[in-house]
Amino acid sequence: MTQFLMDLAPPSRGPRLVPDMTAIRVDAERLRRDFDALAAIGATSQGGVDRPALSEAHLEARAWFREQIAADGFDLRVDGAGNHSAVLGTKRADARTLLLGSHLDSVPRGGRFDGALGVVAAYEVLRSVRDAGIDLGVRLEAIDFTDEEGRWAALMGSRAFAGSLGPEELDAARGNGEAFDQALERAGIDRAGILDAARDPSTLSAFLELHIEQGPRLVESGTRIGIVSSIVGIASHDLRFAGRADHAGTTPMDARRDAGLGAAAAVVAANDCARLSFGECVLNLGQARFLPGATNVVPESARLTLQLRAPDDDRLDALEAAVLESCRRSAGQHGVGFEARRRDRAPATPCSIEIREAIEAACDELELTRQPLVSGAGHDAGSLARICPAGMILIPSTGGSHSPREGAEWSDCVAGANVLLRSAVLLTAESDR
Amino acid sequence: MTQFLMDLAPPSRGPRLVPDMTAIRVDAERLRRDFDALAAIGATSQGGVDRPALSEAHLEARAWFREQIAADGFDLRVDGAGNHSAVLGTKRADARTLLLGSHLDSVPRGGRFDGALGVVAAYEVLRSVRDAGIDLGVRLEAIDFTDEEGRWAALMGSRAFAGSLGPEELDAARGNGEAFDQALERAGIDRAGILDAARDPSTLSAFLELHIEQGPRLVESGTRIGIVSSIVGIASHDLRFAGRADHAGTTPMDARRDAGLGAAAAVVAANDCARLSFGECVLNLGQARFLPGATNVVPESARLTLQLRAPDDDRLDALEAAVLESCRRSAGQHGVGFEARRRDRAPATPCSIEIREAIEAACDELELTRQPLVSGAGHDAGSLARICPAGMILIPSTGGSHSPREGAEWSDCVAGANVLLRSAVLLTAESDR
Repeated sequence: MTQFLMDLAPPSRGPRLVPDMTAIRVDAERLRRDFDALAAIGATSQGGVDRPALSEAHLEARAWFREQIAADGFDLRVDGAGNHSAVLGTKRADARTLLLGSHLDSVPRGGRFDGALGVVAAYEVLRSVRDAGIDLGVRLEAIDFTDEEGRWAALMGSRAFAGSLGPEELDAARGNGEAFDQALERAGIDRAGILDAARDPSTLSAFLELHIEQGPRLVESGTRIGIVSSIVGIASHDLRFAGRADHAGTTPMDARRDAGLGAAAAVVAANDCARLSFGECVLNLGQARFLPGATNVVPESARLTLQLRAPDDDRLDALEAAVLESCRRSAGQHGVGFEARRRDRAPATPCSIEIREAIEAACDELELTRQPLVSGAGHDAGSLARICPAGMILIPSTGGSHSPREGAEWSDCVAGANVLLRSAVLLTAESDR
Repeated sequence: MTQFLMDLAPPSRGPRLVPDMTAIRVDAERLRRDFDALAAIGATSQGGVDRPALSEAHLEARAWFREQIAADGFDLRVDGAGNHSAVLGTKRADARTLLLGSHLDSVPRGGRFDGALGVVAAYEVLRSVRDAGIDLGVRLEAIDFTDEEGRWAALMGSRAFAGSLGPEELDAARGNGEAFDQALERAGIDRAGILDAARDPSTLSAFLELHIEQGPRLVESGTRIGIVSSIVGIASHDLRFAGRADHAGTTPMDARRDAGLGAAAAVVAANDCARLSFGECVLNLGQARFLPGATNVVPESARLTLQLRAPDDDRLDALEAAVLESCRRSAGQHGVGFEARRRDRAPATPCSIEIREAIEAACDELELTRQPLVSGAGHDAGSLARICPAGMILIPSTGGSHSPREGAEWSDCVAGANVLLRSAVLLTAESDR
C-alpha cells in the first residue's frame, strides 16, 4: 500500500495536491433518502422490487433519476441505448471521464439492493465531490445502464456502451421481437440507437461499480469490503443424453438404456468433479427434461443445460473439459450416448490492477477490512473492462440473490459508497492530475 | 403334467371324450390373411400401425372385425363399452362361456402385433373348432376389448366388462371430457353404457389371451412359449424434491441445496436399489423437470414420476418402501427435502393355476418349449382375473414394445395360436364337459 500511495504522489510531481480530500465522506442521510425513494418504485409486498427492464416501474425509476439530476443541476447525458448519466464537469480542458454506476432494472420480483445501490452511490459521489468544492480534473459521470439483468438481452446497455453488442443479439432478444420493439418505444429508444451507442474508449479513464456481493463469502468471513479480482468466464452447454425408449414393465432393468438414469449419473458426477477438483469454479444444471416423458416409458432421451463458471479462461477450459468428460463417462456406464453443444461462452474478465490497488488503499484509509473476490455473476463492469480499466467494490449481502430476501446492512452500504468515493479520488490523483 | 392329464379324463368319467381333438390345428394361412388385413388398417410408413382407441383407424379395424363375424356367420355380441365378440354356440343348455381375446387398439405409432394378434388368433380358434365339427360344450367367444392401451382410460373395455370401472375414472379420462364424449359418440357408445357393461361372472368359465411378450426374455432364452404366472402389481408416485433457488454464479457449490442434484442422486440410488435388491421387480423414472428451470438458477425443486412393478403385492410393498427410503436418503445428503405422493396402485394378479397347467399341457402336446413368466405389462387378462380364472400365452418378440419395430416370427404366432386352441380344448375337457 505504501508503495502505491507513493506512486500516487511521486516526489517528482511536487507536493501532493489533494491532502484535504482525505476527509470527504458521502452524505449518508441523503444517500438513504435516494435509496428509499428508489426502493418504493415497483415495491413488492415481499419487501423487494419488481422492475424488469423497460417495465412501467423501471421507466418510473429512470424518470426519478432524471428528475434528481435536473433538480441538482447536473448535466444529463442519455445515449441511444437509454443509458442515463449525471455528469459533473471539470475545468481541465482535455479531461477524460471517470465513470461510476450500475443499473436501476431488477429481475422479476428481485431485491432492493442489486443495481440500485450502485447507481445512488455513484450519484452521491458526484454530489459529495461538488459539495466539497473540489475539481478532480476528470469529468465524473454517474450512469444507470439499461437492462443489466437481461430481461431482453444480458447487459444490453453496458455492452452497447462498450460497442460489443451486435444486431444479431437484438434480433435474438427474449420474448418476441414485437414486444421488444414496443418496450423500446415506451422508453423512447430504438434498435438503431442501441447499436450506435458505443462511447469512444479514449474519452474514458476508468469505470467503478459498487454492488452487493450476491453470495455469502464476505458475510462468512466477516469482511467489510470485497475487491473484485476478476469477473468469471461463463460457458453454457445444451446436453443431450440418448438412450432407448422401452416398455417400463416388460424390459428388465439390466436390458435398458435409460437416458434419464444416464443423465442423473452425469449430474452427480459433474457436481463431484467441480466440487472436488475445481475450487473457485462452479457449475449449474438448471434445466432438465426427460423424453418422451411418460410414466410407463423408459426415457429415450434427456435434455439438460449446463453452465460453468471459472475465475480465468484456463480454468474454464479445464473445468469444461473435465466436466463434459465426466458426463460422457457416466452416461456410457449406463449405455447412454452423450452430446454437448456449446451455447455461448463469455471469457473471464480480469479487473484492472491499478483500480484494485486504489480500492485497497481506500479501504485501508477508511479502516475497512477487505479481501479479493472473484465475481461469480456477470456485471456491467465486465462489459466496461473491454474498453477501459474497470473495477468493482462489493459489500456483504444476505438472503441470496435476485430475491426479495436480498439484504445488506445500511452501514455496509455507506462504507461501500465511501470506498467508491475515496477510490475515485485516489484514481484521479494518479491518472488524471 | 401326467397328473394333470389324468385329472382331465379321470377313469370314473369313462373313456376320454376328445381323443380326436388332439389333431386340430389353426389354419395358418387364414390367420395370416386376417393379421395382414388388420395390419393394413392405420398402417404407418415405419411398418407399424397407428390405431389409438376410438380413432378413425381403430373404428375401421372394429368394422373390419364385425364384417368378418357377419361373413363367417358367427353371432355378434357388442356390449355397452363397445367390446365386440364373435360367439360360437353350443348345444349344451347350461353352458358357460370360454372367453378368448385381446384388443384392436394400439398406442400411437405402435406395432402390428400388440393386441391384434390376440384377437385374430382367438377368432381363428372359433373357426377351427367349428370347421372341425366339434362342440366343446361351452360357448366360445372371441372378444376385442375397447381401449386396452388407455388412450382414454387404461384397460377401459375389460375393466368395464369386469365391473371394476367407476364413473370417477371416466370423469378422469385423458384429454378433456368433451373430446372423450365425442370419441365415444363416433363409436356409438356412451358413459352410461360403459358403466353398465359388466358381464355376469357366473356365466364365464375362463379367459385366455395370446400376446407378444413385449420383452426380451423368451428371445434370450430361446423358448417358444411363455406362460404368465402373474401380472405385476403397479404403484405410481409423484416425487417432489425441495431445495433452494440460488444464483448459479455467486453461490459456492457447498452452500447450495440443489434440488436437481438431490433428484439426480435419488434416481441413481433408486435404480441401484431395485436392481441390486429386487430381482423380477422393475421401476421407472419416466418424467423429470427442474424448476424454475433457468440455466443460471440453482434448481429450487425437481418433480419426477416413479413407477414400480413387482410380481406380487408383498414384493411391491417392500420395493416401494425401500426405493422411497433410498430417494429420501439421497436427497437428504444434498440438503434437499423429499416428498412422494402415491398416484395409483394396482395389485398384482396371479394367473389361475388350472389355466397355467392347461397351457403347459398344450405346449407339451405341441412339443413347444415353455417357461413361466411374470407379465411386466398390464393386460386385459388382469382385468378378467378379478372375475374368472384367467391366463396368458406369450410368444417371443423383438424390437421393443409399443413401437413400429415390434416384431414376432410368424411361426411363433402360429404356434401361439395353436397353444390357445389346444388350451381351450383341454380346459373345456376338464371344466365343462
